[in-house]
Amino acid sequence: MRILLQITYNGAGFQGFQIQNEGRTVQYELERILKRMHKTFVRIHPSSRTDKGVHALCQYVHFDTPLKLTPAKWQHAFNSALPDDIYVTAVREIQESYHSRYDCIGKAYRYKVYQGAHRDVMKNGRETYIPDELDLKRMQEAAQHFLGTHDFTSFCSAKTEIENKERTIYSFNVEKTADGYDFHVIGSGFLYNMVRIMVQHLMDIGQGKKDGQDIPGVIQARNREKAGKTAPAEGLYLEKIYLTEEELRADLPDGTEIISKRKRERITQ
Amino acid sequence: MRILLQITYNGAGFQGFQIQNEGRTVQYELERILKRMHKTFVRIHPSSRTDKGVHALCQYVHFDTPLKLTPAKWQHAFNSALPDDIYVTAVREIQESYHSRYDCIGKAYRYKVYQGAHRDVMKNGRETYIPDELDLKRMQEAAQHFLGTHDFTSFCSAKTEIENKERTIYSFNVEKTADGYDFHVIGSGFLYNMVRIMVQHLMDIGQGKKDGQDIPGVIQARNREKAGKTAPAEGLYLEKIYLTEEELRADLPDGTEIISKRKRERITQ
Repeated sequence: MRILLQITYNGAGFQGFQIQNEGRTVQYELERILKRMHKTFVRIHPSSRTDKGVHALCQYVHFDTPLKLTPAKWQHAFNSALPDDIYVTAVREIQESYHSRYDCIGKAYRYKVYQGAHRDVMKNGRETYIPDELDLKRMQEAAQHFLGTHDFTSFCSAKTEIENKERTIYSFNVEKTADGYDFHVIGSGFLYNMVRIMVQHLMDIGQGKKDGQDIPGVIQARNREKAGKTAPAEGLYLEKIYLTEEELRADLPDGTEIISKRKRERITQ
Repeated sequence: MRILLQITYNGAGFQGFQIQNEGRTVQYELERILKRMHKTFVRIHPSSRTDKGVHALCQYVHFDTPLKLTPAKWQHAFNSALPDDIYVTAVREIQESYHSRYDCIGKAYRYKVYQGAHRDVMKNGRETYIPDELDLKRMQEAAQHFLGTHDFTSFCSAKTEIENKERTIYSFNVEKTADGYDFHVIGSGFLYNMVRIMVQHLMDIGQGKKDGQDIPGVIQARNREKAGKTAPAEGLYLEKIYLTEEELRADLPDGTEIISKRKRERITQ
């Protein structure tokens, strides 16, 4: 039986999703509980392997089990044993042909920045601090240059091992919040560090250090050195994972063309 | 020369203010920087020794130094060396007769609770989760029974070593927030765990488990076992410290009688 968990976690206390040699990981916390229940190791598979410090408001993981528990029992089993910074929001049984990573057709990320004279210790680990105001209109206009299907080599970590660096960005909006800015992007998938590099590039544009008109050229260069630095992890939230075309379509402007599922493609982030 | 720092910190990552045998403390982080600057140990003195997990929006510490730096230079020296969860918000030179603990004439604490069907991992370490709604009116009315000068033995940790357990509560308000409740209390000082025990007692009243009319009797009993449990540390914020009567008066209803400074009294929390 294949079980799909919808989970949320606060990334501040984790070395990322995936098990590392050292430090807490989300994967370890979930597999630890499964091992205790099964008396043997059970592997979990996430939709997205988020990085150290990155939060997830919605993440999916699946695993196979011979145990016959109701979804409510599974949810209780996890939530009563998980630490306070991970929570299982929903559980359902899925077909064994279904894979949380390969069947994911899109993701939404949000990046949160707050601005002020001083940094706010209570936002530490949850939002990125900037001292100066940014030009919202410039950033919003620039963000539209990312839309469409491109090779995002310039906007992913040089360490990315994946071969196919083509991804589709469906929407990219920059919004003013009470004390800062939210960057909200929906795409078919994202390469390693891709959201954080795009956001930093937009913030550089908002500061007047870069020009939004140059984004198509930066994309075409396929050279990581042409884009800006990588924004810190703490402001990044995996906000939504789209497992069906209907869910994705509901969050996009009417008439947006959705590319077909690219099964078996390995998506790094 | 005596220097007074106004600081703020996120308590989630600390074992409290005061140096412990193990774990990070706010005191250690500040004294570490002073030691590096002075090439010798320099002791800091806080207005309040907050507990493990308790936050401070405003805390004062003072220290004596032979160094002649401007307030702006001190602030920069600390903020460039401090970790992200402590921040120096202001610095000023004070008279050497002035002591951040003994000359403090009042404190304000806020306790933050959020309510909902699920706990929110992003509020972890910053607000206390409760599953059920509370009766706001009952809590607000009950809180008024704490006002005035009382022996708060029933409402402080049994471990409290301090002898004089008399404190004055000037105001105590319970407010509805977007997704929960804020408890806001101003007093002459607070004993060890006192705010957290009073808040839990009020929450028990808000749940209908206790009656606000019984508070005077619980106070009179001078017995820790008569009050409720201790609410978790994560929802507690040291919000303000009053160093002058004018500051305190500005935050209290007109006509509130302020007790004279009780110098040299050791206040635990």
